[in-house]
Amino acid sequence: MPGMSTLCKPAVSVPDYVITMEETLEFAKKVHSGKPQLPLALRLIQKTGVRKRHIVQPIEKTLDHPGLEERNRVYEVESKRMTPPVIEEALANADMTPRDIDAIIYVSCTGFLMPSLTAWLINTMGFRSDTRQIPIAQLGCAAGGAAINRAHDFIRAYPGSNVLIVSAELCSLCYQPSDDDIGSLLSDGLFGDAVAAAVVRGRGGTGVTLERNASYLIPETEDWISYAVRSTGFHFQLDRRVPGTMEPLAPVLRELATNHGLDVEKLDFYIIHAGGPRILDDLSKFLNTDRHMFRHSWSTLTDYGNIASAVVLEALRRLFEENAVVPGANGMIAGFGPGITAEMSVGSWVGDGSRELTTGTPVAAAVG
Amino acid sequence: MPGMSTLCKPAVSVPDYVITMEETLEFAKKVHSGKPQLPLALRLIQKTGVRKRHIVQPIEKTLDHPGLEERNRVYEVESKRMTPPVIEEALANADMTPRDIDAIIYVSCTGFLMPSLTAWLINTMGFRSDTRQIPIAQLGCAAGGAAINRAHDFIRAYPGSNVLIVSAELCSLCYQPSDDDIGSLLSDGLFGDAVAAAVVRGRGGTGVTLERNASYLIPETEDWISYAVRSTGFHFQLDRRVPGTMEPLAPVLRELATNHGLDVEKLDFYIIHAGGPRILDDLSKFLNTDRHMFRHSWSTLTDYGNIASAVVLEALRRLFEENAVVPGANGMIAGFGPGITAEMSVGSWVGDGSRELTTGTPVAAAVG
Repeated sequence: MPGMSTLCKPAVSVPDYVITMEETLEFAKKVHSGKPQLPLALRLIQKTGVRKRHIVQPIEKTLDHPGLEERNRVYEVESKRMTPPVIEEALANADMTPRDIDAIIYVSCTGFLMPSLTAWLINTMGFRSDTRQIPIAQLGCAAGGAAINRAHDFIRAYPGSNVLIVSAELCSLCYQPSDDDIGSLLSDGLFGDAVAAAVVRGRGGTGVTLERNASYLIPETEDWISYAVRSTGFHFQLDRRVPGTMEPLAPVLRELATNHGLDVEKLDFYIIHAGGPRILDDLSKFLNTDRHMFRHSWSTLTDYGNIASAVVLEALRRLFEENAVVPGANGMIAGFGPGITAEMSVGSWVGDGSRELTTGTPVAAAVG
Repeated sequence: MPGMSTLCKPAVSVPDYVITMEETLEFAKKVHSGKPQLPLALRLIQKTGVRKRHIVQPIEKTLDHPGLEERNRVYEVESKRMTPPVIEEALANADMTPRDIDAIIYVSCTGFLMPSLTAWLINTMGFRSDTRQIPIAQLGCAAGGAAINRAHDFIRAYPGSNVLIVSAELCSLCYQPSDDDIGSLLSDGLFGDAVAAAVVRGRGGTGVTLERNASYLIPETEDWISYAVRSTGFHFQLDRRVPGTMEPLAPVLRELATNHGLDVEKLDFYIIHAGGPRILDDLSKFLNTDRHMFRHSWSTLTDYGNIASAVVLEALRRLFEENAVVPGANGMIAGFGPGITAEMSVGSWVGDGSRELTTGTPVAAAVG
């Protein structure tokens, strides 16, 4: 099969500093005390179900704004600190070395470096000098899905090649103390930091064989999720209509599955962007799937918050960890973000010989 | 031939405001009067050969820094004003409509929008909702070559599909009055504004059939061209070693040609990033090609300055205008930028029936 590509087990790392929901609520009350929209914001934050988040700096530093230059410096330092071990783990998961990689797709919307971190990674981690660099900064939370789709496309173009995906989202570095609209207050309680990586192999490998992908832009929604770019950096702007976007997107996901001969309501696994609780609730309703089918997205949201483009990789990592998918199982991966853009793909689980033994019928060989 | 892709005639637009070399020198003397490095900077600017540049605002406004927020607002307004007519012309050049386009690769490193302008273009110009959006902001001047290469790859993956490339570089909006190192003074006299677009067709079309591409990162040069990101926006930082990078890159271009069965010294056309005069001089020396072979890059530099990722599209447009390439002619396209990254491709000229008549042996039919 030409251009077969298998998304292998992702590696994900979250920083050491933790903020719980209780602490988030306390800080919100303190920082925005007396604001009329605060009570609604507190209710919305409680409804997110985000129990804790991980952040790259202690909370006191996070709440402070030392200026864009210092923020972006921390972004660079922390990206360089956090990405190499995650990439090494992702390579090991896929049984690959840096020399095997033909393209690096680097997605991150929470800081800006030029050259992209891809240049530094190539220089410091032993990737080949002819590795294609595909840095994407402007697809926000949809960039995880986009990275998977562009990796698939690259391997379709160059069968047998291998693509490394890296997602570095340090959302806490975009916290803007002076923004107190309801969208900002909510997102202050929603986003978390994480770095993720995964290899898409053009030959062999265990994981999700990517078979078909699609993109979709909901018409006339380009200002529903956006950045205002100011001297203080990126200001996240969220329209109140965003949580309702699963109604127009569900038919698009359904169509992708149908075009591939699959019933979107009866897939074996779903890796869905955990933008927030309403996104997941609505989508399972509109796709007529059990809430439990989105359990890896729910648990990602609960444990880490919305980690932007890294969500789909972390939810997928949890699917691998669960170790319950059997070869041939069909599933869907979907990222959503500004645009409003959806980046979706369908594929099936493929295991190597030994994995088939352990995930299929248990036999003596698997016990040892 | 699967995945055949033809880069059609680009459309390019430059803004109305013009600054001549004489004016550049006058302003530099005035703004940086008394600085020890000024005399050297003035000599370097004179040696660029840039006779004039086009900028989106009058020079007085350009020299002023109203803050990052206002700068980025102008970037958005001017991008939205300038790109649609250029895209329409590029589509017409390729005999395509917006509905024919499967992916938009949008490259720009002189402002930052999220969502990318691709969302607005899809909404306002009639592109399909399932158009793939591939925005790239972090490859700088190399992004023109990268866009061409990724378009080629996309069509290899999806034979018969069509990709629109858009480059919007409003370099004057990155002018930083307080930067007075020699690299900044030189680049203040070098960069110009332009918007360019071109369609890569997966079937049919007149232009350069893209056959093979490659990327290359010169090891350990990631800080030679970079942005410092500050509250005042992007600060362009140029190392004095950059003009010398053609020596390590020439063998890479040679290898690409050789791998494709071509002699890099004897190609029929060269579309080379006009980073500056030394880049073009050195490369023709190291590739043992006549200076005249780079004439479209030289004239782009003279008339518009270094227009970043738009250079290769403008030089290619001039090749089309010259109307002297014959079907089957072989050529190379190469963009260079931060990393230091080279994005290169080789291909051959393909004409439709009527064009073959006019560019080949003149016959009666071509006269009418």
